[in-house]
Amino acid sequence: MAHRPIVTLTTDFGINDYFVGAVKGVILDIVPEAAIVDISHAVQAFDVLDGALTISQTYSYFPTGTVHMVVVDPGVGTTRRPIIASSDGYHFVAPDNGVLSMVYAKEERIHVRHVTSDHYFRQPVSNTFHGRDIFAPVAAYLAKMVDSHKFGEEIEDYVRFAAPKPKPAGDNRLRAVVLKVDRFGNLITNLTPEDAPALFTGKTPFKITVGSKEISDIRSSYAEGAPGEVFGILGSMGYLEIVANRAAAAQITGAGKGAEVSIVFSEGAAAGKGA
Amino acid sequence: MAHRPIVTLTTDFGINDYFVGAVKGVILDIVPEAAIVDISHAVQAFDVLDGALTISQTYSYFPTGTVHMVVVDPGVGTTRRPIIASSDGYHFVAPDNGVLSMVYAKEERIHVRHVTSDHYFRQPVSNTFHGRDIFAPVAAYLAKMVDSHKFGEEIEDYVRFAAPKPKPAGDNRLRAVVLKVDRFGNLITNLTPEDAPALFTGKTPFKITVGSKEISDIRSSYAEGAPGEVFGILGSMGYLEIVANRAAAAQITGAGKGAEVSIVFSEGAAAGKGA
Amino acid sequence: MAHRPIVTLTTDFGINDYFVGAVKGVILDIVPEAAIVDISHAVQAFDVLDGALTISQTYSYFPTGTVHMVVVDPGVGTTRRPIIASSDGYHFVAPDNGVLSMVYAKEERIHVRHVTSDHYFRQPVSNTFHGRDIFAPVAAYLAKMVDSHKFGEEIEDYVRFAAPKPKPAGDNRLRAVVLKVDRFGNLITNLTPEDAPALFTGKTPFKITVGSKEISDIRSSYAEGAPGEVFGILGSMGYLEIVANRAAAAQITGAGKGAEVSIVFSEGAAAGKGA
Repeated sequence: MAHRPIVTLTTDFGINDYFVGAVKGVILDIVPEAAIVDISHAVQAFDVLDGALTISQTYSYFPTGTVHMVVVDPGVGTTRRPIIASSDGYHFVAPDNGVLSMVYAKEERIHVRHVTSDHYFRQPVSNTFHGRDIFAPVAAYLAKMVDSHKFGEEIEDYVRFAAPKPKPAGDNRLRAVVLKVDRFGNLITNLTPEDAPALFTGKTPFKITVGSKEISDIRSSYAEGAPGEVFGILGSMGYLEIVANRAAAAQITGAGKGAEVSIVFSEGAAAGKGA
Repeated sequence: MAHRPIVTLTTDFGINDYFVGAVKGVILDIVPEAAIVDISHAVQAFDVLDGALTISQTYSYFPTGTVHMVVVDPGVGTTRRPIIASSDGYHFVAPDNGVLSMVYAKEERIHVRHVTSDHYFRQPVSNTFHGRDIFAPVAAYLAKMVDSHKFGEEIEDYVRFAAPKPKPAGDNRLRAVVLKVDRFGNLITNLTPEDAPALFTGKTPFKITVGSKEISDIRSSYAEGAPGEVFGILGSMGYLEIVANRAAAAQITGAGKGAEVSIVFSEGAAAGKGA
Repeated sequence: MAHRPIVTLTTDFGINDYFVGAVKGVILDIVPEAAIVDISHAVQAFDVLDGALTISQTYSYFPTGTVHMVVVDPGVGTTRRPIIASSDGYHFVAPDNGVLSMVYAKEERIHVRHVTSDHYFRQPVSNTFHGRDIFAPVAAYLAKMVDSHKFGEEIEDYVRFAAPKPKPAGDNRLRAVVLKVDRFGNLITNLTPEDAPALFTGKTPFKITVGSKEISDIRSSYAEGAPGEVFGILGSMGYLEIVANRAAAAQITGAGKGAEVSIVFSEGAAAGKGA
C-alpha cells in the first residue's frame, strides 16, 4: 500500500526565526518522503490554551494515520514529560502540559505514553529547543511507522485541564468569554449551542453584551448584517461568534481576547442546561 | 504517467487561525498525494480585487494541470455561486464574485461552471466556511482527475469586473492609482507600458507625482537610484512601480494603496493610446 | 534509488506578495515532484547578514542532497553574480553578496561557481526579480540532478564577510552585540562559548549589561527564572541569549537588534581567548 506519511505542525514558534526550518529539516532527514503541513506557527507565545484550541479544531480533518506535532512548551528544559497520545486515527506528539486537553475531550479512546526512549532523539538534546531535538524526531519516526510502544510506557496521570465553559451568573444569565479574535476581527466565544440552546432557537429574546455593544440577533451568515451592525453567529468552530458583515467586530465593540460576554435571557425563558 | 496533483491556495484567511489548516486537512484527506502550495493567505480581508491581482500574477508559473483554489469570499452563506473556471492549462475553484476577473482577462479560452453537485461537498455544509466545506473538496476532486463536467453546468453570466485602468485627465495627462504596496515598500501602480508607451522610451520628458514626491526618471533596476531617491521602474508584475533603492518608497512619498499617481508629459509629447 | 528532490527557500520576500508563489510555481514547473520547504521569508528586507544567519543555522538539518535557495538581493539587476556553492552535502543557490558567508565559515570544503549558463534561466530575465527568473530555475535544475559543472565556471573571489565577533574592550571586558530578537523576545547575541569560556563555567563572577538591565547568571533553561527576571542562557543556535521566563527580554531590557552587550568579569578572572 502506498502510504504517504503526513506530519502536521502546530507551534508558537512564529515564522520569523530559524525554529520551523530546523524542525522541518530534522523531520525530512528521517523521513524524506513525508508531507509536512503547517497548521499554525502563530499560537500565542507560551499560551497552552490557545495551542489546545488550534489543534483541537483542526486535527480531525486530516487523513487517518497523520502525525500531529504540537509544541507550545514554556516548560522546555524542565521535568515536564514529552508524550505521544494515540487515538484511533492519529498520533499527537507534544509536551505533557495540557496542550492536548481539548483533543482528549473529543477522543473517547486515547492512549498516552511518556516518551523515554532517547535513542530516537537528536543528540545532544538541548535544554532550550525540544521541538527540534525531541518532538520532531519522535514525530518523524512515528510517521515512518515505528510502533508507538517503542517510545515509552503508557501513563494515566497526563496533564489535562478543563476548557473554560460559560458560567451561570444569576437568573437567566450566563457569563462567557472571548477565546480568541480571528483574522477578520470576529470574536470567538467559548459558548456552544449545548451551553445555551435557547440562544439558537430564535424563540427566546436575549441580550448579549460584549465590550461597548449590545446584541439581540443570531444570524446564519456573515453577509446578513447591515454595514457596521454587530450580531451573533454559530461559527464554523462550533462556538458563538460575535461578528460584523465585512468589518471587524473586535474593533467595533472594543472587545478582545479574554473579554467578558454577558448573555441575559428575557424573564421566564430557559437558559439551557448551562445556566 | 506519473501525475502529481498540485493544489495552490490563495485566500484572505491569514495564517493565525485554524482556517488554512482545516482546508489542507480536507484536501489531503481526499487526495493524500497532493502537493499543496500556499500562494498567499494575506490577501486583504474581503478585498476581491486584491485577490484577483494575486492569483492573476501567479497562476501561470505553475505546471499544466495545477488546480488553483482562490477564496476571498465576503458573500459566504449567500446565494453567490461556487464556480470552476477551466482554461487550457488550469482549473480555478472560487466564489463567483469577480475574484477571477484578471484571470479571465488573460485567458482567451475559459469555461466556467456553476458547481452544484453537492455530493462532492463536505457535509454538513456550514454557512460560514465554504473554503473548508465546498472549495477545498472540489479542488481536491479536480486534482484527483474527476472531470469538471461532473460538478455542474456551464454558465456564461459569471461575474467579472474590469481591472481599474489609468484614465486620461486632460491634455498630456494620465491619472493612475497605487494597486498595492509590496513588502519592500514599492508602490505598484495600475499603469502598464501599453497605457503610456512614451513613459518607457526615454525620449519624452514627464513628471509623475505620487504623494509628496515628483519623479522624472524611469530606471531599469532598483539599485540604480541614489540613497533616498524615488524613481520609477517597470516591475516584474508588468506595472509601473514607484520605488527607492534599499528603501521604502511608500514611506518616503507618504503614499499607500489607493493613492493617486498623476503623470504629465511635456507639451507636444504623445501620451500613448491610453491618454 | 528513490531520490526525492528537496528545495528550501530562505528569502526576504515576506509572505504578503506574489513573490513566493511565483518562485514555487517556477520550481514545480521544472521539477514537479520536488518538496519545497519554506525556511523563512521573513529575513529583514535587504539585510544580507540576517539572511546569512538564517541559512547558516538551518541548512545542516536537512537531508544530504537538499538544494538551498537563498535570496536576499538588494543588488538585483546589477552585475553582482548569481552563484552555486556546493559543499559535500548541499547546493546553495544565491546572489554573490556575502549571504552565504556563515555557510562558508562552517563548511571546510566548498566549491563556488559563477552561474552563466543562461539557457537554464527563465526568459526573458527581468531586472527586478532574479528569484523567479534565475535562482528558482537554477535551484530546480540542480534538484533535478543537473550537474553543477554545467552552470558555469568555478570562482575563488566570491564575496564573503566575517561574522561580527565580540571585541575586547579593556581589561576583563568584552563587547558583544544583539544579532537578532527572536519571536519570544529573546536577545540572540553574537557571543559563543569559544569567545568567553569563563562565562559558562559557573566559576567566574561576571556582569552583563544589556539595555537597562544587569545580569549575573547563566542558567540552563528558560524555565529556571523567576517572573520578570532576566538572565543568560546558551541558546539552541550556539550563542549567548539574554532571556526571561515566559516573557520578552527585549521588552524588559529595552534592547533590540544591534544593541550593545557589555560583559565584565571580576578582576583576575580570565575572559577567554576572545578577550
